[in-house]
Amino acid sequence: MAAKPIFLRSNTIPAILMSLKDALHWRYAPKRMTGATVAPQHIEAILRAAQYAPSSMGLQPFSLILVQDTAVKALIKPIAYNQPQIAEASHLLLFCAYTQLTQQHIDTYLQQIISVRGVSAESLAAFRGSMMRFAQTSSSEQIAHWAANQAYIALGFALAEAALLGVDVTPMEGFDKAALDKFFQLPSQQLCSVALLAIGHRDEANDFLAKEKKVRKPLAQLVKRI
Amino acid sequence: MAAKPIFLRSNTIPAILMSLKDALHWRYAPKRMTGATVAPQHIEAILRAAQYAPSSMGLQPFSLILVQDTAVKALIKPIAYNQPQIAEASHLLLFCAYTQLTQQHIDTYLQQIISVRGVSAESLAAFRGSMMRFAQTSSSEQIAHWAANQAYIALGFALAEAALLGVDVTPMEGFDKAALDKFFQLPSQQLCSVALLAIGHRDEANDFLAKEKKVRKPLAQLVKRI
Repeated sequence: MAAKPIFLRSNTIPAILMSLKDALHWRYAPKRMTGATVAPQHIEAILRAAQYAPSSMGLQPFSLILVQDTAVKALIKPIAYNQPQIAEASHLLLFCAYTQLTQQHIDTYLQQIISVRGVSAESLAAFRGSMMRFAQTSSSEQIAHWAANQAYIALGFALAEAALLGVDVTPMEGFDKAALDKFFQLPSQQLCSVALLAIGHRDEANDFLAKEKKVRKPLAQLVKRI
Repeated sequence: MAAKPIFLRSNTIPAILMSLKDALHWRYAPKRMTGATVAPQHIEAILRAAQYAPSSMGLQPFSLILVQDTAVKALIKPIAYNQPQIAEASHLLLFCAYTQLTQQHIDTYLQQIISVRGVSAESLAAFRGSMMRFAQTSSSEQIAHWAANQAYIALGFALAEAALLGVDVTPMEGFDKAALDKFFQLPSQQLCSVALLAIGHRDEANDFLAKEKKVRKPLAQLVKRI
């Protein structure tokens, strides 16, 4: 096990932290958290990492719900089978995937490209065509899985950034998706919940897994080289 | 746009590089690469990031194929609609997801936990039960999607590590999945291809997107706060 790295827990996010390798050895998914609040600038950095994740065609077919409200966390807890870190987390971050890809999504995105890059709509016509064809030829199930995949890349980025900042996060799929969708009225927004990230501080004293060694497939087993 | 950061391209992987924020502004998905070889220690770091990604129940239901062989890359190129970065990449990394979760997968994993943590099989009986119930009550389609989601977290980690190392990577879903599955004989291994990562060096001179500004949903649009 890597020794616990030293973090710069200053009020500004330090520009240089530690290698991802060290961070990934330090991180684990706490089953218990202390309830302490995570600094706002760390929350923002985690959100920005998810924001900057690449996505298929750049469409970012997902959205995020950040919950800090104690009462709302308490209402989510039974939906997540009463796992304690739901209420003990400082923040919950719900990753929601599109269940549809509409012409409006595509045109909003193109408008953003036009505005950021100062290009013409005409120059994006072929790109628009290929996105529209993808939207029209994919079943709603295919769209939902495609969108969930993109959300999981962003989840990976959020997890990596949290580790680099020394913030504890637990990615969670163990919740009643239909109930959480209903709780946040996701179906009417053409969204569905895919994963929850509990963001907080590990409670080592009460977490039987906190000190356990990491178990990972050896590279020789995980990777075939050609 | 952030200025191009200075990388320490030494023979050893530097312990401290730059913040993920800077790295994520620097990175983009090159459409053209120079063909130059990426240093082996950077390839290993990217593999390790994928290896250390968290996964549902720790099962890591995916495997990776790393291709450096020029002839094999040339054979994959038409399967990926002749996108030039396939052959111009130094390495291709294919993420393959389980299409089944078998008792053998579960028991191999438990054996690894026993070996790494020095715990008894009895102490893992409840955990085994919950994994077996998940395997038995999920359809093969559900398993494939669940496994793909975990592979995408690992893809996110590989992308983040590459950015931190200043290595260019292009995540790609644009390939004929059935043809690539067949090429690597994945079905007989109960695997399917989910995403390709081209790893190399950006060719700015020939990539019309290399200098473009990043387009991302503003945080106010991406995140709802409660």
